[in-house]
This record gives sequence, C-alpha cells and structure tokens, in this order.
Amino acid sequence: QLAELCAGQFETLALSGRTVFITAGPTREALDPVRYISNHSSGKMGYALAEAARDAGARVKLITGPVSIAAPERVECIRVESAQQMLDASLTGLSGCDLFIAAAAVADYRPVSIAEHKIKKGSEEIMELHLVKNPDIVATVAAAEDRPYTVGFAAETRDVVSYAQNKLARKKLDLIVANDVSAPGIGFNSDENAVTLVGPDSIETLPQTHKQQLARQLINRIARHFNEYAKTSGKDS
Amino acid sequence: QLAELCAGQFETLALSGRTVFITAGPTREALDPVRYISNHSSGKMGYALAEAARDAGARVKLITGPVSIAAPERVECIRVESAQQMLDASLTGLSGCDLFIAAAAVADYRPVSIAEHKIKKGSEEIMELHLVKNPDIVATVAAAEDRPYTVGFAAETRDVVSYAQNKLARKKLDLIVANDVSAPGIGFNSDENAVTLVGPDSIETLPQTHKQQLARQLINRIARHFNEYAKTSGKDS
Repeated sequence: QLAELCAGQFETLALSGRTVFITAGPTREALDPVRYISNHSSGKMGYALAEAARDAGARVKLITGPVSIAAPERVECIRVESAQQMLDASLTGLSGCDLFIAAAAVADYRPVSIAEHKIKKGSEEIMELHLVKNPDIVATVAAAEDRPYTVGFAAETRDVVSYAQNKLARKKLDLIVANDVSAPGIGFNSDENAVTLVGPDSIETLPQTHKQQLARQLINRIARHFNEYAKTSGKDS
Repeated sequence: QLAELCAGQFETLALSGRTVFITAGPTREALDPVRYISNHSSGKMGYALAEAARDAGARVKLITGPVSIAAPERVECIRVESAQQMLDASLTGLSGCDLFIAAAAVADYRPVSIAEHKIKKGSEEIMELHLVKNPDIVATVAAAEDRPYTVGFAAETRDVVSYAQNKLARKKLDLIVANDVSAPGIGFNSDENAVTLVGPDSIETLPQTHKQQLARQLINRIARHFNEYAKTSGKDS
C-alpha cells in the first residue's frame, strides 16, 4: 500500500520516467597544452536545471564543461572539455533521450590545430589565430533521427527575442531559453537570472530570481510544452 | 621583555620588514563580453608563495588573476583580469617593493580589439583572430628604475633549464623558477609541483612535493639569494 502511495506520488511528477540530457558550463578549446579559448559561463544554470529535472522525476544525464560546482546527487555527470567532446557525449545514447536541454555555452570556434608544445612567444607584435567553426551541438541533436524534444539557450547582449526566434527556426528547435547577458546582476557567473522562453508561437518572460528557483519554474514550463508535444507526437508514456 | 622576545623572534625571519609583490593565476583577455583567451594556471603556486612570504615576515601584495581560491589572510589581495590590469597593479607602489615574484601565467597576446557586443557566429567556416602582444610584466618590472629583486617563472614543456637561462638573461631577471608543465601530476591545476631554480650562476632542483611545502622551500631559497643581493646592492635593512 505504501508502495502504491509512493508510486502515486511519482506519477504526478512532470517528468516521471523521462530521460533528460542537459549540457552545462563553457567549453574550452585548446590552443596548446596550456592555453585555451573559453567563456564566462559558470554552469550554475545548467546544474540547477539538472537538479530541477531530477526532482521532477527524470533520469538526468548532465554533460558538463569545466566548472567549479560539485556534481549533483543522483545525476549522471559526464565531464568534457571541448565542443567536440560535448557533442560526442550528447550523441551517446541519444535515441533513449526524451528531452534535450542545451544550457552549455559552447565555443563557436576552435583553433584549426592544437600545438603539441607550448607556443613560444616570438618577436612578432601581431599574431593571427586561425579558427574553425565547431560542430553545432543543439542543431545536430535537433536534426537527429527520432530526435528528442530539443531546448536551446540564447545568450545575447541585444535584440534578445528576435535573435531567439531566428535561432529557433534556423536550428529547428522546439523551445529557446533566451537571456540578456549584458543586463547587470544576471546571467553568466551570477547567482540570478531572468529569461524569456521563446517557442514557435509563444513568448513567456520569467522575471529575475535565483537560478535554483528559476530552474524549477523553467523545468515546469518546459515539461508542460514537452508533454503537449509528446501527446501529439505519440511519444506519450 | 615579552615584546623584546617577540621582536627577537621576528628579527630571525628571512623577509622581516620587506615588501613583496607576488602575481598569481592566469590572465583573461576578452574577445567580447562573453569570450576570452586564458590558460590553465590555477593560482595555487602564487597563493602558496604569498602565504609563505607572509609567514617569513614580509608585507605581501598579491596581484591575482581570476582563480577559485580564497584570499590568504594578512595579505593585500588585488584582483585583476587582463595582463594590462596586472601590469598597472604591479607598477603601483613598485618603488616601495623589495622583492617581486611573478608567478602569474600572463597571456602573451590579447585580441587587438574587444567587441562591445557578443560576436555573432557567421556562416564562415574559418575565422581569423588578430592578436597583439601583451606588455611583458616581469621584464617591465626588472627594467624599472630602482627595481626590486625580480623573480620570474618559466612554465615549459621541453628544454626547461635552457629556456629558463635564456629568459633570465633576456629579461634581466635575478632568478627564474622553472617547471616542466608537460610532466604528469605537477604544475598547472595540480596540487604538487617540482621546480628548478635558475640564477645567473646557479641551478638548484627542488623535488616534487605539495605546493605549500614547495612554496616554503622556494621562499627560503629566494630570501637567501635576495638577502645576498640586498647586502651587495646597499639595500640591506
């Protein structure tokens, strides 16, 4: 009877029995054994989403770039450095993934080649760095056969919603979580965030709050969109 | 009498009454509001040196790039991001500095310009990044009028001692702490290190140990070299 009660409890959770992949943090693109290109993503938003999705009943695989946050409990944590490694980890087991949330700040470009030894500073005042475009992880996932419901992020410093709508269509995503990283006190390396959730025919703004709180609100909203999608796409459990 | 006893104690410390500037950690060179070039320096060695110099009786100013270590107690901690900011902080009050230890891993190059807004990924598969040489902080300090005793670091992946000797002469430094960052288990982002102390006519190897322990050994050796220099240069206190 207790088991039935517990089962009944879990049945009510928004992501019960679902498998969710979440990417988090920055990637680092090596120039040589000591230098790299990266960005200011702290991973806090992705980690908070992983905990919120776990608490909503999902099995969570967190694919994370280098950050200084401890791995959440009861979450499978895969540590990567580069965008290519993050893509490989994202595609591993993707056919069993119901919902993919790409919260990582993936480097758009990486050095064409990684020097085996530390590059010595020459006498040149100017240096050219040759970069090549990284694979687009969220677009690759969204284009996969039997793809999961795919949620992207857009960190912008201006025209946040219009960039997000453009990105949604171009990458064939289901939802975009857009935020303005130029606004003070929110976003990268901050404990708070405010976002706008942009769907094919919806725009919803979630006001500024702690990332943990915002992550719970976001997982609620995303789960609602996902469950509607799952019904119509025959993926309902 | 107690005061005299205490004073007597302090007199025996190797850096009593000396002012020591120490740089630590990486620098970050911004590409735009979210992206940067950096390196794998954890700051652990510089922070350990700051504590060891403080415990040897010195007034310590720690000029630190972005790291995830708490500021040491009884150490003046100046936080910077870029090489230019680190240089500015190093030159501030330099005439009162007796000993300068450049443990930071300063980016050799920075982007020619910092984009005001996040650079949008274009359709180009290839991108050229134009970099310009950063100021050489330790060489600038060593070339200053009434310069402090100046100790540099050399993180190399090969030919460690010969690169260090070359660097010592070229930058007119007094000592170089050289280490092989390609050796497993030591150096960048590790808790242990092994170094070779290279002077104009001395080479001394300190075997692998914890950075805290190594920092105390290093400060002892550096203080001995410095105190000899101070005697001959008339800077003896």
